[in-house]
Amino acid sequence: MIEGTVANEQSKPLAYGMVGGGQGAFIGDVHRKAIALDGLAELRAGCFSRSYENTLITGKVLGLDRERLYTTYEDMAIKEGIRSDKIDFVVIVTPNAQHYSAAKAFLNQGIHVVCDKPLTFEVAEAQELAALAKSKSLLFAVTYTYTGYPIIKHAREMIKSGDIGEIRFINAEYPQEWLATPIEKDGQKQAAWRTNPQLAGKSNCVGDIGSHIENIISYITGLKIKALCARLDSFVSGRQLDDNASILVEYENGSKGLYWSSQIAIGYDNGLRIRIFGTKGSIQWSQENPNYLLVSRLGKPTEIISRGRDNLYPHAQGYSRIPSGHPEGYFEAMANIYKTYITALTKKKAGKPLSEPDLDFPSVEMGIDGVKFIGKCVESSQKGAVWLTY
Amino acid sequence: MIEGTVANEQSKPLAYGMVGGGQGAFIGDVHRKAIALDGLAELRAGCFSRSYENTLITGKVLGLDRERLYTTYEDMAIKEGIRSDKIDFVVIVTPNAQHYSAAKAFLNQGIHVVCDKPLTFEVAEAQELAALAKSKSLLFAVTYTYTGYPIIKHAREMIKSGDIGEIRFINAEYPQEWLATPIEKDGQKQAAWRTNPQLAGKSNCVGDIGSHIENIISYITGLKIKALCARLDSFVSGRQLDDNASILVEYENGSKGLYWSSQIAIGYDNGLRIRIFGTKGSIQWSQENPNYLLVSRLGKPTEIISRGRDNLYPHAQGYSRIPSGHPEGYFEAMANIYKTYITALTKKKAGKPLSEPDLDFPSVEMGIDGVKFIGKCVESSQKGAVWLTY
Amino acid sequence: MIEGTVANEQSKPLAYGMVGGGQGAFIGDVHRKAIALDGLAELRAGCFSRSYENTLITGKVLGLDRERLYTTYEDMAIKEGIRSDKIDFVVIVTPNAQHYSAAKAFLNQGIHVVCDKPLTFEVAEAQELAALAKSKSLLFAVTYTYTGYPIIKHAREMIKSGDIGEIRFINAEYPQEWLATPIEKDGQKQAAWRTNPQLAGKSNCVGDIGSHIENIISYITGLKIKALCARLDSFVSGRQLDDNASILVEYENGSKGLYWSSQIAIGYDNGLRIRIFGTKGSIQWSQENPNYLLVSRLGKPTEIISRGRDNLYPHAQGYSRIPSGHPEGYFEAMANIYKTYITALTKKKAGKPLSEPDLDFPSVEMGIDGVKFIGKCVESSQKGAVWLTY
Amino acid sequence: MIEGTVANEQSKPLAYGMVGGGQGAFIGDVHRKAIALDGLAELRAGCFSRSYENTLITGKVLGLDRERLYTTYEDMAIKEGIRSDKIDFVVIVTPNAQHYSAAKAFLNQGIHVVCDKPLTFEVAEAQELAALAKSKSLLFAVTYTYTGYPIIKHAREMIKSGDIGEIRFINAEYPQEWLATPIEKDGQKQAAWRTNPQLAGKSNCVGDIGSHIENIISYITGLKIKALCARLDSFVSGRQLDDNASILVEYENGSKGLYWSSQIAIGYDNGLRIRIFGTKGSIQWSQENPNYLLVSRLGKPTEIISRGRDNLYPHAQGYSRIPSGHPEGYFEAMANIYKTYITALTKKKAGKPLSEPDLDFPSVEMGIDGVKFIGKCVESSQKGAVWLTY
Repeated sequence: MIEGTVANEQSKPLAYGMVGGGQGAFIGDVHRKAIALDGLAELRAGCFSRSYENTLITGKVLGLDRERLYTTYEDMAIKEGIRSDKIDFVVIVTPNAQHYSAAKAFLNQGIHVVCDKPLTFEVAEAQELAALAKSKSLLFAVTYTYTGYPIIKHAREMIKSGDIGEIRFINAEYPQEWLATPIEKDGQKQAAWRTNPQLAGKSNCVGDIGSHIENIISYITGLKIKALCARLDSFVSGRQLDDNASILVEYENGSKGLYWSSQIAIGYDNGLRIRIFGTKGSIQWSQENPNYLLVSRLGKPTEIISRGRDNLYPHAQGYSRIPSGHPEGYFEAMANIYKTYITALTKKKAGKPLSEPDLDFPSVEMGIDGVKFIGKCVESSQKGAVWLTY
Repeated sequence: MIEGTVANEQSKPLAYGMVGGGQGAFIGDVHRKAIALDGLAELRAGCFSRSYENTLITGKVLGLDRERLYTTYEDMAIKEGIRSDKIDFVVIVTPNAQHYSAAKAFLNQGIHVVCDKPLTFEVAEAQELAALAKSKSLLFAVTYTYTGYPIIKHAREMIKSGDIGEIRFINAEYPQEWLATPIEKDGQKQAAWRTNPQLAGKSNCVGDIGSHIENIISYITGLKIKALCARLDSFVSGRQLDDNASILVEYENGSKGLYWSSQIAIGYDNGLRIRIFGTKGSIQWSQENPNYLLVSRLGKPTEIISRGRDNLYPHAQGYSRIPSGHPEGYFEAMANIYKTYITALTKKKAGKPLSEPDLDFPSVEMGIDGVKFIGKCVESSQKGAVWLTY
Repeated sequence: MIEGTVANEQSKPLAYGMVGGGQGAFIGDVHRKAIALDGLAELRAGCFSRSYENTLITGKVLGLDRERLYTTYEDMAIKEGIRSDKIDFVVIVTPNAQHYSAAKAFLNQGIHVVCDKPLTFEVAEAQELAALAKSKSLLFAVTYTYTGYPIIKHAREMIKSGDIGEIRFINAEYPQEWLATPIEKDGQKQAAWRTNPQLAGKSNCVGDIGSHIENIISYITGLKIKALCARLDSFVSGRQLDDNASILVEYENGSKGLYWSSQIAIGYDNGLRIRIFGTKGSIQWSQENPNYLLVSRLGKPTEIISRGRDNLYPHAQGYSRIPSGHPEGYFEAMANIYKTYITALTKKKAGKPLSEPDLDFPSVEMGIDGVKFIGKCVESSQKGAVWLTY
Repeated sequence: MIEGTVANEQSKPLAYGMVGGGQGAFIGDVHRKAIALDGLAELRAGCFSRSYENTLITGKVLGLDRERLYTTYEDMAIKEGIRSDKIDFVVIVTPNAQHYSAAKAFLNQGIHVVCDKPLTFEVAEAQELAALAKSKSLLFAVTYTYTGYPIIKHAREMIKSGDIGEIRFINAEYPQEWLATPIEKDGQKQAAWRTNPQLAGKSNCVGDIGSHIENIISYITGLKIKALCARLDSFVSGRQLDDNASILVEYENGSKGLYWSSQIAIGYDNGLRIRIFGTKGSIQWSQENPNYLLVSRLGKPTEIISRGRDNLYPHAQGYSRIPSGHPEGYFEAMANIYKTYITALTKKKAGKPLSEPDLDFPSVEMGIDGVKFIGKCVESSQKGAVWLTY
């Protein structure tokens, strides 16, 4: 084992609030734990559910002041906005349908926002949020969690540095099995909202996980999509939204991509996997074994890069908390996003300038890209899986 | 270790001839060794090269009679056809351009044929060969080698038996790296002919390896393609034919597929991999680790099926030569095709009826399907990666 | 993804202090983050280093009151012991040499203790601590972190339930590469103390990682060692303590074991791996991919059990925080130990009875077993790798 | 795919005979197929069973002349020895008990010998065979099949070249599950003789598979054993011989080893695996995935070396028949041993000198080493798993 440090810890944590994440929800608790890991911010206010009773119970368990437990997020935004000890930022982890209006409410009160993805139903809404945040100089993050893995940041540095040459082709996939049967009919809460267009938006599979593919590829490579051809399937009888999608992509620089996301892929838990092929080499990564990167270079044997051990680029290595061989996982990846966001916010509050590495969290612009991607995929598929330009 | 037998060995091997496979060629020697493994047929005649000198040298090394070494395959077909000890079948392992006329020549002389894939350039040619073989009651095999793996035969039996329910989606790929640079310009012989339309036909990547995907999926599942949308790429500058292909497929029963083949995928040797998802389960197989099959069933942990150990279906188990844990590979897979073909031919010559399992070698109909698939992919891509019905 | 809950969160966190873990140390920060993840306890006091300056800096960064930053742990124990808001428990993460006296100091003041392993240099010391804790009714945990993985708890339940029958043979190993060269001579701080008998005790390799093997096997199987034969090696020239060890073990019930630990195994980061073979089946687990367990049953294919998905035993499943496919790692394993310990302590303070599952954290008795194991291994090796009975 | 050749094929195959390998036996047929693969020798005579009826049936199926089917191997040795067209070499694949006398009979008639392992029951017998072969200038091979894998030959060249520095520690294992239950009582023929001291000799598990560990490590590294301490177990009730063994080894140069072989390791088919750690790097190989070698070098990421692709040493590469990614397996490994042996014998018959690479097949000296190893392990275990010097 090698030496670590107490690096980057702050004496004065920021305050944050949360919308969504009450009893019975899943992802809100993950966000709270991920923030707690580094201790850079503390939960102070919440509107955890449309049920005020749920909010009260959740808030009590979490040790919050009752006066900072709110019946609606609109109310929360207004009342927090006028407190002297108001929350520094809000975390929005509701079903997709509330993202837009909730985010807007807090931005309007001058409160910084972290919002789950997909950001909104429509591109115009996402763009409006971006413009609003910009006009008010507020930091807006979208929690594309997988960008927080140190090895993903290393992959990004590799591509930037030309380690694998010019990118030619990308094959990325995200198979899951959890919707292989119609569990939404059996009262499974998350399945119910994700397959309901009123709550999830235009797409289920592309919206929930296909958009992660779009984001992580964009994050690592910087490539912009020029055109796509998408076929969305609904294999489970009676399901209104897609549960499987095959997408051909063309990027602005002429390179090509192939994306597959699925929720009917029996045998897969959460199989995000990316493969990027360049003129000089390739990289491969699987989210279920996230501490390793396979790197192949022309004429050389494939290498297994291990987080923390094998000379990661310094920016990537800085996101590693523990020596190689001690697995870091999903919580630490999410914590990395919050660590960057909160540190940037702290700097900003202190009037310090923010550099590019300071802003290495998934931005509202990525949120816009995600919404656009979902819309284009749905449109292409509805027209018969035809090519659409961006 | 468990007991084996001397099963299926014959006292009187058949005689075969070969077209192609001279000094400097690669695959012909593999065919010869695969046939020799079981000893059911012996090489007696050959036209190993367009260079008679090469044929003479090769024939001498292989211990053939000089009078059965021929300058052209037309000559060989005619002269062998009239011998009392003529070859029972011919193996055609030339570059693609000669397949059609060579096969035709031997069929016309009443000689059974084994031909490498892709069978011909045009569908009409393949159909003509099929009709000719049928009219003369000759056995015609096309060496789609990967169908010879015992585990693939087990997968086929599983699908037939409904073990994974109705098939919904198939993801299959075949990445290689060997053409990531323009080695055809450096005198690499196989690269030179495979990227030359005069010798390889309409397609390089789909023709050589994409067609293996089409075949093995068809073999395992029995699904027929109804429509496809293919994008063929030529990533290496100056290359006339494709070196990468992404193909969306729809089958007649409504299930869907996604195929990717590539010769620019740095890091991959010969990465044929298939994944088939049904309503009740899924299977996964990788050619580079061919003795194992991953099987996932709804609500159960994924199982690692090992050839020879885990209760394979009897027909599949019959193709295993050695206990589990003793790896069988490419030679044994090819030998399995020849074992079935030669055993069927021996039965046929003895006037015995041939059952369906007797004919479990890749047929001339599969050869036609392959040529059709290649043609449709090229046509779809040339029209802008549009959908074409079959 | 499946639904989660806000289960087990407490409104009133306990208070804890820490000895060791200052600037430049590694593991202390890991403990703090692991505790923070669940938020069940908060750091209130510390003596982070023998350097008071280091303690002051560390304490400031961590936001502690200056009056609760101490120059010595003896001072800390006494002063905390008399505060009305004293810490509920102390975490001891110093080099091995201080464990005994530090733990004793806090026990004497009636403060519960969590101590890193190996617990002490001598068995008598460890027994004294156990007796002291018992006499004062104090909860004492030893941070054998790997017992915190949910899959390990599932393995334990499997063995208890007889899922693999009677245990026959165990093969367990823990290879690392970090001491393959004499980095202790180049100022690497952790290497320096771990290879120094004054600070590390009788053994380096067995003490640091071999003892993890002994512990995790004992934890999972409940087997007691009856005799052992150990060969300890010092492959790096000039090293006083062992850096590699091969250990034959016999258990009281007649089953046998084989342990290997190494710090010179180039290519390994932190390769703890266990394999347990019974009369009806076997299990395999690797710490570097900790969310999966391989289970083989007689006459059946090997299964890949995935944390969170495949019907873990309820007690084990309760330690999973997030759906399968979202990797949990080292921090979450350590957090599980603290979650159990702190929850038990909270119950105890509330006068509630503690059941066996409540006490499922590594106990001081395990600490004694570890010290005994280290001593026996060293003694066996020094006598020529002979058999010693327990 | 890359170009191959018709290299090394001979116009005039040698003649060989076989003792053992009749109907109902397993390994004899594997030897015949492996020899047939390259076609360098042809079967001409046999005594396939103690049952002459079995020999007659087997011989007929294999197309042999009835006059060269013998009732006893003594008879066969004498009668073949005086034929003008006598066999060039004999392959002995009987149960262990017949190896010594059968080999002796053929050597006495001036016939070259290939014999299965373990060579004999007693060291003196093995030494006698070696002396006899030497005095008559006969080539004697022992079929330690695993030395025939191209990647193993590459590993050997790496060690010779100092690629991983000085060897410090070796961990090698060979687990199987096939004897986890008392199948010898249910009439399983191979189990019956392997667990019977009259037929198998002093040891079952060490004799059958532990000796493969000893051999492959000796072959790759050239290290000589100086002392060992072995514990042999019989876990299955009523079994007379060992079914599991743990062995500590010390080599003459001071490096150390740890061997484990088992036939009760449920989940394992044929899991020979070796790991060799040096001062500058390490290598890892698993027989069940034999075309790859993991190579780790100090301070560098682990590399996956693929047979045929990644610049194998020329001598090793020469044993590869087909491009990387096309799996070669057990048959090809065995064929490599015969290819070398028969080529050497052909050269010898032609009066050509034999160089070291010409003799790269497992020798009778390796056979002696194997018998010695088995004897020492049994003796050590019987004395209480004590250390014995060589």
